[in-house]
Order: sequence, then C-alpha cells, then structure tokens
Amino acid sequence: MSSKKITFDDIATYTNFSKSTISRYFNKPDLLSEESQEIIRQALIDLNYHENKLARALANGQSEFVGIIIPNIYLDYYAEVLNQLLGTFEKHGYKFLVFLGDKNKEIEKEYIEELLAFNIEGLIELSHSIPSKELVEYNIPVITIEREDENINSINSDNYEGAVMATQHLINNGCDMLIHVNTIIPPNAPARKRIEGFEDTCIQNKVQFKTCIYDFGNSREETEETIKQFFDECEKLYSGINKGIFFANDHYAIKFLNLIFKKYGYLPDEYQLVGYDNSPIAQDSILKLTTVSQQISELTTEAMRELVLMMEERKKSSSPKKIPILHKKVKPKLIIRDTTKPLNNIKSLTDGSM
Amino acid sequence: MSSKKITFDDIATYTNFSKSTISRYFNKPDLLSEESQEIIRQALIDLNYHENKLARALANGQSEFVGIIIPNIYLDYYAEVLNQLLGTFEKHGYKFLVFLGDKNKEIEKEYIEELLAFNIEGLIELSHSIPSKELVEYNIPVITIEREDENINSINSDNYEGAVMATQHLINNGCDMLIHVNTIIPPNAPARKRIEGFEDTCIQNKVQFKTCIYDFGNSREETEETIKQFFDECEKLYSGINKGIFFANDHYAIKFLNLIFKKYGYLPDEYQLVGYDNSPIAQDSILKLTTVSQQISELTTEAMRELVLMMEERKKSSSPKKIPILHKKVKPKLIIRDTTKPLNNIKSLTDGSM
Repeated sequence: MSSKKITFDDIATYTNFSKSTISRYFNKPDLLSEESQEIIRQALIDLNYHENKLARALANGQSEFVGIIIPNIYLDYYAEVLNQLLGTFEKHGYKFLVFLGDKNKEIEKEYIEELLAFNIEGLIELSHSIPSKELVEYNIPVITIEREDENINSINSDNYEGAVMATQHLINNGCDMLIHVNTIIPPNAPARKRIEGFEDTCIQNKVQFKTCIYDFGNSREETEETIKQFFDECEKLYSGINKGIFFANDHYAIKFLNLIFKKYGYLPDEYQLVGYDNSPIAQDSILKLTTVSQQISELTTEAMRELVLMMEERKKSSSPKKIPILHKKVKPKLIIRDTTKPLNNIKSLTDGSM
Repeated sequence: MSSKKITFDDIATYTNFSKSTISRYFNKPDLLSEESQEIIRQALIDLNYHENKLARALANGQSEFVGIIIPNIYLDYYAEVLNQLLGTFEKHGYKFLVFLGDKNKEIEKEYIEELLAFNIEGLIELSHSIPSKELVEYNIPVITIEREDENINSINSDNYEGAVMATQHLINNGCDMLIHVNTIIPPNAPARKRIEGFEDTCIQNKVQFKTCIYDFGNSREETEETIKQFFDECEKLYSGINKGIFFANDHYAIKFLNLIFKKYGYLPDEYQLVGYDNSPIAQDSILKLTTVSQQISELTTEAMRELVLMMEERKKSSSPKKIPILHKKVKPKLIIRDTTKPLNNIKSLTDGSM
C-alpha cells in the first residue's frame, strides 16, 4: 500500500466525477444523488482515503481539540480525572491533547502557546501554576478543576460539605476528640475549605478538636516519617480517649492505619479513621477505609458539559456575550467502611438525621 | 484583547515589510538580517500572534502529533506508562492525542481513523483489540507496548526474565514449595512468558511447584473472593511447608498479605510473597512488598526513541526501506522488601550469584 496522500483530484479521476462534485460530497452531500454518494463512498474505500480533518480545522477554525493540563497522573485522583475526561470522547467527539503541567509557570505558558498553535477549542486546567486572571487573557473557553478559580469558570468538589460529612460522622459515632490532619495548601485552593468544614462542625457540636498541619515533604519516606511522628503523639498524648481522625487524603489515613495494625494487630475502638478521595488504596488496605468520594465521574461530566457549552457559544460568535463567572460545586459522598463504627447505639442513630 | 486571528498581512502592515519577508521569517529566518528578525519578533509579541502550527502541519505533513491508544488509566501500570510518555514532550516535542481503547476492535479502528484524519506522525498502541497484522496495514510508524506484536515493532518488559528473578529469589531464600498465581492471559500476550519463566526455573532447581490460573472476574469483589479461596487452600493443604508464592501482580499479592495479617497479626516465616509491577500499593501495604519492577521509565524512553527514529525515517521518504521487525526487551528489576527473607544463612548467600 502506498502512503501517498489521496487528493480530491485522485478521487475525481477514479470516479469520473468533477473535482467540485467530490468537494460537494464532503461539504454538502445532500446535493448529490444517493447513487453518486455511494460511488464516491466506495472510491474512498478503494483508494484508502483518509479524511483530512486538519484541513477542515484550518478552514473552519474547528479543530475538535481540547487541551488538558494536569499536574501528573501518578496520583490516583488525577489519573481518574484524566481517565473520565478521555472517556467523554464517545459523547462529545472532542479529542484531547494532554500535557503534564507539574512544572513552573513559564513552562506551562509554553504548553498553552503550543496548544493555541494547534487551534484548541477549549482548555481544561488542573495545574496550579498560572493564576486565573492570566488564564482569562488567553480568551478561549477554559474550565478549571480544583484549583484557584477567582476569575474563571470552574467545577470543584464541595470540599466544605465533604469535611462536614466526615466530621459529623465521627461525632455521631461517639468520638470524644476530633483531629484533622492536613498538609500545607496553596492560598485560594478549594481544598482549604476542608479545614473550615471540619472546624465549623466541631464548634457547632461543641466537641474538642485539633487541626494538625504538617509539611509532608516531597518523598514517600518524608510522608511516612511525618505520619509516624503524628502516630507517636496520638499514642502518648491522647491514650484512652476516643479519637476521631479525619485525614486530608486516603494515603495519610492508610499509613496511619498500618502503624496501628502493626502495633496492635487490629484497630482498637479508641481510633476511628476517615480518609478523603476514595482512592483505590482505600479498598486495598488491611481494613477498608471510610472515606469521602469526590464523585469524579460527576465532576468531569459537568466540566465537559460546561466547556462544550462555552465552545459552542464561541462557534456562534468570536466575541460571545459576557456571562457571569461560573463556580459549580459537585456534592461529595461519604462512604462508610471498616475504620469507623458507632461506639454506642444511641449516638449512632443520629447518623440517620444527616 | 481581540480573538481575531493575526495573519501574515497584519504583520506585514505593522512592520512595513512585505508579506514574503514575513513568510521568510517563519521558514528561512537565516536569510533575514538580525535586525529584521528582531523587528518581526517584537511585532509578533505586540500583535499577540500565535503561530498556526495547524497550517504548517497541513503544508509540510508534519503534525507533531503522536497517537496513544491505552486500555485505561485506572490501573497503576497504564497510568504510569502514560505519565512517562507524556513527559517525553520536553525531549522530543511530540504532542500526544490520547484515546482509551478498552473497547472492541471496531471502535478502536474508528479511533485510529480519527487519529489519521489529524495526520498523526506515529502511533503507540497498548490496547489488545487490533491484531498486529492489521496495525501494519495503516502504513504509519507504530510501536506496541506489552501486547501481541508478531508483525509490528514493539518494546516489552522481559517477562520471562522477571519471572526467573522472582522465582530464583524465593528458591534462594529456602522455600520448599513454589506457587505461581496468575489470571487467564490472551494468547500471544508477552505476559504469558511469566508462567514459562516460573516453571522453567522451578524445574531447573528441582523444586516442587504449582501453577494456579484463576478467573479473577471483573470486579474487586470477585478478585477478593478468588484470593480468599486460594488462601484457604494454602492454609489447608500446605500448612507447615515453607511456601514461596509469586503473584502475577502486586494487587493479588497485597490482598493475600492482608488475609494473612488479619489471621495472624504478622507474616509467618512459612509464607514468602513476591508481586509484580512495583505499583504504588507495593509500598503502601501493611508490609512493603517484594516485587518485580518493569522499569516503565526505560520502557517508555525506548518506545519513544524507536518511534522517533521511525518517524524521522518517514519524513525523509514516504516509502522507507524495509527493515526487520524490532522486538526490544527491557530488563526488569527485582525489588526486595519486607515480604521475603532468607530462611537460613547458607542458602541466602547464593542470592549474590544471580
């Protein structure tokens, strides 16, 4: 088979139609008879013709490309977000040009320039480097997921609500002291709301609480060392107290659970643990972890739905009417598994009222 | 800022150069004086000009796109492969159009048609649906990773060697009985070599062995149920025997380890476990798992290196000279952690001779 590109001329010669008839077939096929269409259809197969969408994109400005900039895909959360976004091809037909943006702002801007050079119709930004006020200036449809979004449309998990669910569950289960373990979060990042949700719920319920913010470092070893320190502190300072610990992610919770299990061989009643994210690890651990699901499938469905609306609006007009900035929140879901349980029946009944 | 596309005419008007001078700047800049280049460079910034690579791709046939078809990215292995492939942008400059191909052959062929319509320069295929003899017919540079590759260039982990390393390690550690646990693998898939590597090593070392192939089903629950059955069998049939168990992946190994730990509170000497893949879970588990790393970074570096060579060859000539099919193997690496240990000192010394 030859790799020579088949042109309209070639198809015209092969079918004995004029070149303009061939052009019409691609642009306004209804103007041709069924019979002519069938002859051309067969010719395309015979000649092994591939439609040149690049040429079409150039002609009408509709590349069908959406750019995605994502910090990485070794974290379960990002892998699942990308997995779900790519899966929307079947529904919307947009193809995805994917860049890893876990770098600095200048490099990320180069990626956006690169994406613009290929006429992307829209951009999904998950990376944190470029402030939203600069993203706006690119003047293309953009939607962000779980990052600073002051000046731009975004879809985020309702982090406040997720923290409230986790905290209320621990309180309902009869924990006497609540602890929240989190890392240093960039200012304005939506995930900060988890701290607020935790603290507000504790205050409203008049429960003793502690918020522990650690620098977990940049390696698995540093993270493990930090969790070990926190575990030793819990054992020393809060022995005999029913502790409800709400971790900022499942990985911290699992590392803590492993330390408990190695020491006791089981999870003592005085510990109740809740993670965040519903990562695969939450079900592969020694005990299945109670956790908060961010409902990634809903999050990505909504993100694409909004982006498609913006892109379609843009196709109608290159200076679409100003509409208010959209900050949509997706309700998370508490998933109760084996690391939490009611310490007495009376209190547990209140779970039903949530 | 206006979203109107800036043309060569606009740049010519702005700089008072002719349109052909502007064109020369983009195609043969060396023909212009340094001073002229600088004037045009500044004009591009002032006008907020974005290079139209789509137009360039159409003109010279070099889209800079590489297509990737990957079964999914919720499995750690695929997520890491994609992570590493996307990371090669910095080195090679190729951009990636990514499709999830965990579907049927017809749908996957549509994806390839879609990729061809956008003039991809090459394709990386990880999905299993399309036989290699059909991939060849697309007549573009293709490289496959860990799938049937009879008629096409491929980069695979040396699955046989990985199994030999794992098995020999268990034998050297003094295990009296070797067991390999695997799932039903498609014919011709490179991963089948792990079974051969295991059995050959046992036979050569005259060690008692058993190969257990299970249908692990399609859900986490079915997988867990199957591992539970296997665990009960081990406890019943091989009690008191030093068992070395080599699992086809880390997830099976971890689920088995969890069952042991829940029963005993520790890992008894009579169990030694080796996984495969060096997934993140291998380090997040209750004990860190001994496992075989497929060296994904090397695998993807090699895959891109070979694909780039093929794509460059293609740029020189549309009917490049026939070269023999390349099947490159990357040597895996045994990573010894906490689920294996020498049962006596004499035997363990032989590990050094591997």
